[in-house]
Amino acid sequence: MEFKKIIEEKSKESWEIYIPNLSIDCVVFGYHNASLKILTVKMKENNLWALPGGYVLKTENIKEAANRILQQRTGAENIYLQQFRVFSDLNRSEGFFSEFDDTIWNKQRFLSIGFYALVDYSKVNLVVDSFSDACEWKDIEDLPQLMMDHGIIFEKGLSTLRKQLNYKPIGLNLLPEKFTMPELQKLYEIILGKKLNRGNFFRKMLRYDILVKLDESRKGGAHKSPDLYMYDTEKYQAALRNGLNEGW
Amino acid sequence: MEFKKIIEEKSKESWEIYIPNLSIDCVVFGYHNASLKILTVKMKENNLWALPGGYVLKTENIKEAANRILQQRTGAENIYLQQFRVFSDLNRSEGFFSEFDDTIWNKQRFLSIGFYALVDYSKVNLVVDSFSDACEWKDIEDLPQLMMDHGIIFEKGLSTLRKQLNYKPIGLNLLPEKFTMPELQKLYEIILGKKLNRGNFFRKMLRYDILVKLDESRKGGAHKSPDLYMYDTEKYQAALRNGLNEGW
Repeated sequence: MEFKKIIEEKSKESWEIYIPNLSIDCVVFGYHNASLKILTVKMKENNLWALPGGYVLKTENIKEAANRILQQRTGAENIYLQQFRVFSDLNRSEGFFSEFDDTIWNKQRFLSIGFYALVDYSKVNLVVDSFSDACEWKDIEDLPQLMMDHGIIFEKGLSTLRKQLNYKPIGLNLLPEKFTMPELQKLYEIILGKKLNRGNFFRKMLRYDILVKLDESRKGGAHKSPDLYMYDTEKYQAALRNGLNEGW
Repeated sequence: MEFKKIIEEKSKESWEIYIPNLSIDCVVFGYHNASLKILTVKMKENNLWALPGGYVLKTENIKEAANRILQQRTGAENIYLQQFRVFSDLNRSEGFFSEFDDTIWNKQRFLSIGFYALVDYSKVNLVVDSFSDACEWKDIEDLPQLMMDHGIIFEKGLSTLRKQLNYKPIGLNLLPEKFTMPELQKLYEIILGKKLNRGNFFRKMLRYDILVKLDESRKGGAHKSPDLYMYDTEKYQAALRNGLNEGW
């Protein structure tokens, strides 16, 4: 079937099953070996890099939609996703499919709901679906040009993450079970995009009271072996619910 | 014109001018004389109390929509509104207008974008529009039953505000120009819904470095006259942009 026919067929189905004018885009942060990446897909239609995204079925809520989209597009299942903002500028989505009839699904105005997630990317098994040529992790320091306003959606997702460092713990499921204070500091530095003072970081982190110091240290480095820590899972979960005890 | 006809006429217009299946609901917090209230409207259709809300024109973004809605429904202009969450549960909006045809606008599934604002409510001039019987401030400690999931939207708006106390200053345009530390503490206590330790509050607030202590004190109380403060507007604005200096 020729491309035009395929799009027209798919458009008819989309009008039937999805909420019109509404899309979802996901900023999936992957942390591994002290580097922060996001999941990107290369669209078959136009060869542009994009955030993984899709639409909301008439029969599901947006969280279910985001989970389904991420699974279909990337093979990643059960990733904890959090909505963070609606992107609704006029003309953010139009301009594609100009050679098609105005009634075509893809040609409409779309308001997009941004979701973000933070995962250990070595635990995600990517698949390439029928819409995309490629599905890849890209380092946030070295992103390709993203289509439409996806660059802005990524920036807003990252700044949301930064703000959350002020009232939510982060790191469980990202760091190995046992980690050193410099490794934890590195995670914060990468998300914040700036260096932190070692002493201040240490004191602030201990005041959060979510870490357990182990009777072990990391062997093998050139320097004095640093102490190993792990999260006190109960206190960590309580801080997720009630905020860090540095907060109000 | 009978009620049914009016609804059908309005429905036809709504399909033409609005983005379908999408609504906006506003949690407008008003602070005055040490009490926190929200703006509520009483719907003519069903006599229920609701948050002020409406729809998104095909020709505007959601922030423009929220501002327009608030102005039309309440007479309040130029209120700084901030989106905070999309509410998308199935059946959150259906169940009304059951006696009407399924194609009627008001009978559709609506996903609603929540906005919040915080204002000095004595500066807002309320008007009652054609959809509502009443538009009133209600104390958050004494809210009437709100229709649909508006109670949940209010709760989420309040918890968003609480989280923001951890990284954003609050109070400018809410408090009088000059205020005492107990008055500022009261504002925090009311938003947080809990008492705070006086000494800790004082020290933490001074560390934020956004206040100027004046050479005046509040006269007339039974106790020692408390010192007056005002915001250092430049430092306040910088903290709004970059976060409080207690943060990361």
